Amino acid sequence: MIVEVLTIGDELLRGEILDSNKSHLSERLREFDLHVRFHASVRDDPRDIEDALNRAGRRSDAVLISGGLGPTRDDITIEVLAAATGRKLALHQPSLDAMRAYFERFGRTMSPSNEKQAWFPEGAEVLPNPVGTAPGCMLETDAALFFCMPGVPRELYRMLDEQVLPRLRARLAPDAPVLRSTLLRTFGIGESTLEDALRDLARGEDVELGFRTTWPDNFLRATARGRGEAEAGRRLDELCEALSERLGSLVYGRDDQTMESVVGVLLRERGATLATAESCTGGLLAGRITAVPGSSSYFLGGIAAYANRVKQQLLGVPEALLQQHGAVSEPVAKAMAEGARERFGADYALATTGISGPGGGSEEKPVGTVCIGFASPAGTDVRRFLFPFDRERHRQITVQAALDRLRRELLGEAPLATGLSASAPSVPPAAHAKRSRS
Amino acid sequence: MIVEVLTIGDELLRGEILDSNKSHLSERLREFDLHVRFHASVRDDPRDIEDALNRAGRRSDAVLISGGLGPTRDDITIEVLAAATGRKLALHQPSLDAMRAYFERFGRTMSPSNEKQAWFPEGAEVLPNPVGTAPGCMLETDAALFFCMPGVPRELYRMLDEQVLPRLRARLAPDAPVLRSTLLRTFGIGESTLEDALRDLARGEDVELGFRTTWPDNFLRATARGRGEAEAGRRLDELCEALSERLGSLVYGRDDQTMESVVGVLLRERGATLATAESCTGGLLAGRITAVPGSSSYFLGGIAAYANRVKQQLLGVPEALLQQHGAVSEPVAKAMAEGARERFGADYALATTGISGPGGGSEEKPVGTVCIGFASPAGTDVRRFLFPFDRERHRQITVQAALDRLRRELLGEAPLATGLSASAPSVPPAAHAKRSRS
Repeated sequence: MIVEVLTIGDELLRGEILDSNKSHLSERLREFDLHVRFHASVRDDPRDIEDALNRAGRRSDAVLISGGLGPTRDDITIEVLAAATGRKLALHQPSLDAMRAYFERFGRTMSPSNEKQAWFPEGAEVLPNPVGTAPGCMLETDAALFFCMPGVPRELYRMLDEQVLPRLRARLAPDAPVLRSTLLRTFGIGESTLEDALRDLARGEDVELGFRTTWPDNFLRATARGRGEAEAGRRLDELCEALSERLGSLVYGRDDQTMESVVGVLLRERGATLATAESCTGGLLAGRITAVPGSSSYFLGGIAAYANRVKQQLLGVPEALLQQHGAVSEPVAKAMAEGARERFGADYALATTGISGPGGGSEEKPVGTVCIGFASPAGTDVRRFLFPFDRERHRQITVQAALDRLRRELLGEAPLATGLSASAPSVPPAAHAKRSRS
Repeated sequence: MIVEVLTIGDELLRGEILDSNKSHLSERLREFDLHVRFHASVRDDPRDIEDALNRAGRRSDAVLISGGLGPTRDDITIEVLAAATGRKLALHQPSLDAMRAYFERFGRTMSPSNEKQAWFPEGAEVLPNPVGTAPGCMLETDAALFFCMPGVPRELYRMLDEQVLPRLRARLAPDAPVLRSTLLRTFGIGESTLEDALRDLARGEDVELGFRTTWPDNFLRATARGRGEAEAGRRLDELCEALSERLGSLVYGRDDQTMESVVGVLLRERGATLATAESCTGGLLAGRITAVPGSSSYFLGGIAAYANRVKQQLLGVPEALLQQHGAVSEPVAKAMAEGARERFGADYALATTGISGPGGGSEEKPVGTVCIGFASPAGTDVRRFLFPFDRERHRQITVQAALDRLRRELLGEAPLATGLSASAPSVPPAAHAKRSRS
């Protein structure tokens, strides 16, 4: 099956946004051993869209289209698809009803421009969008199988998984190899180190490893092929076992498990509670922890102690420590963690204090320095890292390292070496575009 | 001039990397009023590349190609370009010499496979690559003007600036229009409402409006064209003035200004300080505020008060209020804001308490309910919103609404109506779950 991805939108051609849908679609399709052969992007221009659809129909069997399903004048994908395939548009009443009901629920009248989102080419199958206004559709013609999806990534991801992939899969030959894959999430090891360490495990046609950096993690996609679910599953299990043996606790989660959700499960299992005290991360750490539904059962609260006075008053950090060692220091991180543990009455507390930049560094404590304090029933320890990255990335990797500290404790694993900075998802600039492309 | 970008490489079609070259090229060209009209990506496959080059030659005047210039077997862009345009390859001795010197500089011997990087189609102009081994080239044919550039972003960026853009610019008519553009960031108005409200302002060839949703905001790109910098600038100013008049304080910032940076500037100008008390946003609000470098000069700190006990102990929320009204209520939001203002000794305090979901809703307080408290020297007010979005987006829009509340106060503007929820970007009709054919 020749697959093509067509992304539509002026903003893509203007270069205002990175076309991540294109990569996402390509990557997900590979799980079904489907390889995208062509990619094209065009503006919200009826002639250009029609040309692109016609060409795609000639050269490809399946065409995955993203964008142009919104309510505005620019959004014309559906009507051009109808024109290009010689079909009329027909109202899909259930979509219109759902849209109206939604607006009514909030006491608003639906804008007339929304109505067009309920019209589809005759013969198209409407694909529901549970997280946005624009339903998608599938249209099969003599030329090809067209799927229209929204351009908003989170809407597209969901529609792809729930609607598009099952329909594509159903059309593959019954003896097509089955693919099984899983995403292993690692923290604390660089992409090239990871690749070097694992290269020998991905030999053979039946297994495959893909690497992707998603700051501050490195993701590893393990894929196995087999003549059936069972064989593919067995091969994937074997591969994952070999990977786990090699990587140990560097793998913190699989698939949708985030660092904070993994930590949440561990805390819940142990009936333990957590509190935070943050200086450089300024609330991000608590924000990440509370991203997990149900986190109120183990997260008591946190203090963003940006001003030194707040560190003293709310966390009980002695003024002398601040004066003698400075706010970014092991003793202050220790006092912050202990202060949070005590004040919140929590089993565990994490504290961050560091210099995220761009200013504020010194020779002794360069920009990127951070101390992570960890207080537990067994005592308190502090680890100092140097994360030489920009402000945003510095804060993100600090949050991840703090959560990882707790995760390792809960698993009875040794903490990451403070040399993490050197093996951290290497070198900041354009980590996603780092691979050789000449 | 019709411009096309063609990016080449298996890794792009596999979705392993984001195609940032495409966006970069498009964005840089717009400064010269050159609009990329087509984008295509193909694998390292001679037939697909040749097809793509031929099509580009037919439909475009200038074709910017990235990738496939390396030393490996896969890198075939140059030879396919020669074949497609019916030209022989010729050795470019200066490139070979430069390449040898480059390797010597790093104490390495050049691999024989690198030599092919010095061969170019007859008639091509070689474009030096000061930061890598692969030179590029420009080839003018009857069909189009082709530029070949490396795929490595930093090499491409440099070659684009130093070699490609000057050559393109030289071919533009001396009276080619100049472009000026700016991004207006709005919060609190939906994309379709925004477009309806502004449609009449973007009439005429000299001005253009583009809309883009970046949750929870809607962005508006205003562009103006003129015969010179002055005329384009004047038209842009006029357009922006008209937009501002229409939108008023719905526009919170321009270009790189985030809501938190705008609020930071206003606080700094007034020498005022801020503290936060967060329940449902759990630290995200403080995290956003501290994303701004230098925020320590106005942000004193925040408390993520997830547990009710923490709301009582650290923020002084009376137990009776919690019992009588529940944690998600106007009186508790008020007490949280006042508690934070008092305990941190801040001029202003923001408090959030809500039900981000997925669980925890009731008939009286459905999932999505949130109370935002705002304490200032003039007193405290609380606004209740219903943001019917998923957990992550609920938290994000709550943070933005809280910051916007403060921004409006600092500007002397009225707060947003609590009907915000309905006009917020991309209102999702929760339930067209029914599949049917239309």
